[in-house]
Amino acid sequence: MNHFPSPAAFEAALAALPPASTAARAAAEARQSRLTKPAGSLGRLEDIAIFLAGWQQRERPKIERARAIVFAGNHGVVARGVSAFPPGVTAQMVANFEAGGAAINALCLAAGIDLKVVAIDLDRPTADFAEAPAMSEAECLAALNAGAAAVEADLDLLILGEMGIGNSTAAAALCARSLGGDGALWVGPGTGVDAEGIARKREAVDRALDLHRGAPATPFDTLRRVGGREIAAIAGAVLRARQAAIPVVLDGFICCSAVAPLHAAQPGIVAHCLAGHCSAEPGHARLLEQLGLDPLLALDMRLGEASGAAVAAMVIRAAVAAHDRMATFDEASVSAGL
Amino acid sequence: MNHFPSPAAFEAALAALPPASTAARAAAEARQSRLTKPAGSLGRLEDIAIFLAGWQQRERPKIERARAIVFAGNHGVVARGVSAFPPGVTAQMVANFEAGGAAINALCLAAGIDLKVVAIDLDRPTADFAEAPAMSEAECLAALNAGAAAVEADLDLLILGEMGIGNSTAAAALCARSLGGDGALWVGPGTGVDAEGIARKREAVDRALDLHRGAPATPFDTLRRVGGREIAAIAGAVLRARQAAIPVVLDGFICCSAVAPLHAAQPGIVAHCLAGHCSAEPGHARLLEQLGLDPLLALDMRLGEASGAAVAAMVIRAAVAAHDRMATFDEASVSAGL
Repeated sequence: MNHFPSPAAFEAALAALPPASTAARAAAEARQSRLTKPAGSLGRLEDIAIFLAGWQQRERPKIERARAIVFAGNHGVVARGVSAFPPGVTAQMVANFEAGGAAINALCLAAGIDLKVVAIDLDRPTADFAEAPAMSEAECLAALNAGAAAVEADLDLLILGEMGIGNSTAAAALCARSLGGDGALWVGPGTGVDAEGIARKREAVDRALDLHRGAPATPFDTLRRVGGREIAAIAGAVLRARQAAIPVVLDGFICCSAVAPLHAAQPGIVAHCLAGHCSAEPGHARLLEQLGLDPLLALDMRLGEASGAAVAAMVIRAAVAAHDRMATFDEASVSAGL
Repeated sequence: MNHFPSPAAFEAALAALPPASTAARAAAEARQSRLTKPAGSLGRLEDIAIFLAGWQQRERPKIERARAIVFAGNHGVVARGVSAFPPGVTAQMVANFEAGGAAINALCLAAGIDLKVVAIDLDRPTADFAEAPAMSEAECLAALNAGAAAVEADLDLLILGEMGIGNSTAAAALCARSLGGDGALWVGPGTGVDAEGIARKREAVDRALDLHRGAPATPFDTLRRVGGREIAAIAGAVLRARQAAIPVVLDGFICCSAVAPLHAAQPGIVAHCLAGHCSAEPGHARLLEQLGLDPLLALDMRLGEASGAAVAAMVIRAAVAAHDRMATFDEASVSAGL
């Protein structure tokens, strides 16, 4: 059974976003004020704990079931020479994820996160979006639903990431079409293309913007025209997580680009999301600013695979640990401030 | 047996700092280039792994014995109304550390770090350094040696922090005397004093600078005159760790201020140190810049207790995990870049 049976159902779900619990947030704020530390002195760790309390709807949030999902897809736009790696690397890296040899495997192990890899039709790359819509409606809907279906409803925290040779070009196109600007504004080196590769990426984005300019600008249609399967899956997972009140940690530029078309229609879509980090890809900082997300980390990472979000999950664990385990002033017989 | 039998022995050790292993660094760099990711795409995680390799003198560093030490001391300068908390809170918080109820307990548990608390003569506050040297030579030497003695030689990583009501005023004085500037430049709200409290802190620093202006400006003498016992202990621990080739994670403004007088004499003292975070205390960013340290995190924390460094240790664990556990391109049969 598909979670979003039609594009209209997806758009309707996006227009009916449930809020966090204000009561749980208030209870968590009150608890923070009683813990043995100067008020506010744990900074963003306090904000994170209160954020999680609101979405988990409990004064003391927990992270017992943390799940990272890496979605993978292939892209027709690679024919334009937009990546430093051959497209076969997408499948090779999926095999590497499954064998436990990639960065995200090591980082999930270190962070106590279960990893799920969802490769979507790797043998059927999307169309080159500079020449045609990347996906048919049915293909895009299937990818959205693959994303939604991957989200178990009982997770405490969901970490999202992607793998797809060529997908930083799709991400730039999604940002430009959703938020304005052109290839020059949104394209960067991705995995490490040279200046000529960047020029080819910009041209692909600008061609796509021209080609699809007259088409509907709904979130679904933008995902379908210039996105990719793994990107649409992330969009579906973000929306499904919201419906299930699961807090989400977004990864880098490509992961966040999946939210851009949704945000253009419904800015509240990011309310249950944390930006795990700001990557070295130049468009990411600009995208995060437009999404209104303040990244937890800035470690010059630019790998994708949910790697930055997985490191951020360790900081989120720290926030939960302090919130849950610290003594109050009364419990510890410590004098509060003057 | 004291590790530093005299002030001269301390200064001599500071003048004979051992370097990291260039061979181990090079081996770690070579390993990073073979792992299944675009070159450089793990950003600072790669730098951290290579840094640890150099100090641990092995291609693949490990973090099995990670230790946080929180040093505590009391300060005569509190008589000037420089803190939002009464001085008895130092001992109350030491009891809280020992009972497991403080932020650092929760964060160490989350990060897999052993915690040691070293309270130094809490019943004998230092002298008010705006009126006299904070410590005698014997007192300062004892504190330095308490710091050195707390460092086991077989640690893989040392996390340092402090607790001491009033010690952000001592930290400001240490920075001003070591690096230039005055109370206005280095004083901030600390645990949360109001504008009048900040004015009193500035005045205390400026008085101290005047009082001690003609005295020798050696690292030892600066620590003794305007530091504190817990701060001198941190200086001793940093130097002892260097001698034992143990990488160190520094915490916030006060922890880092312990290194300022050492750095003024021997800038290489910070080569084995990572700045865990940049705190919300305004002087910290300035101090880190002058020390040449780029903080791993910026989470608006301002608690001390090694709390920011403990969160950073989780990121350091992530760096080690990726470096150690990832497959190489050959092992995973993944195509390297074009």
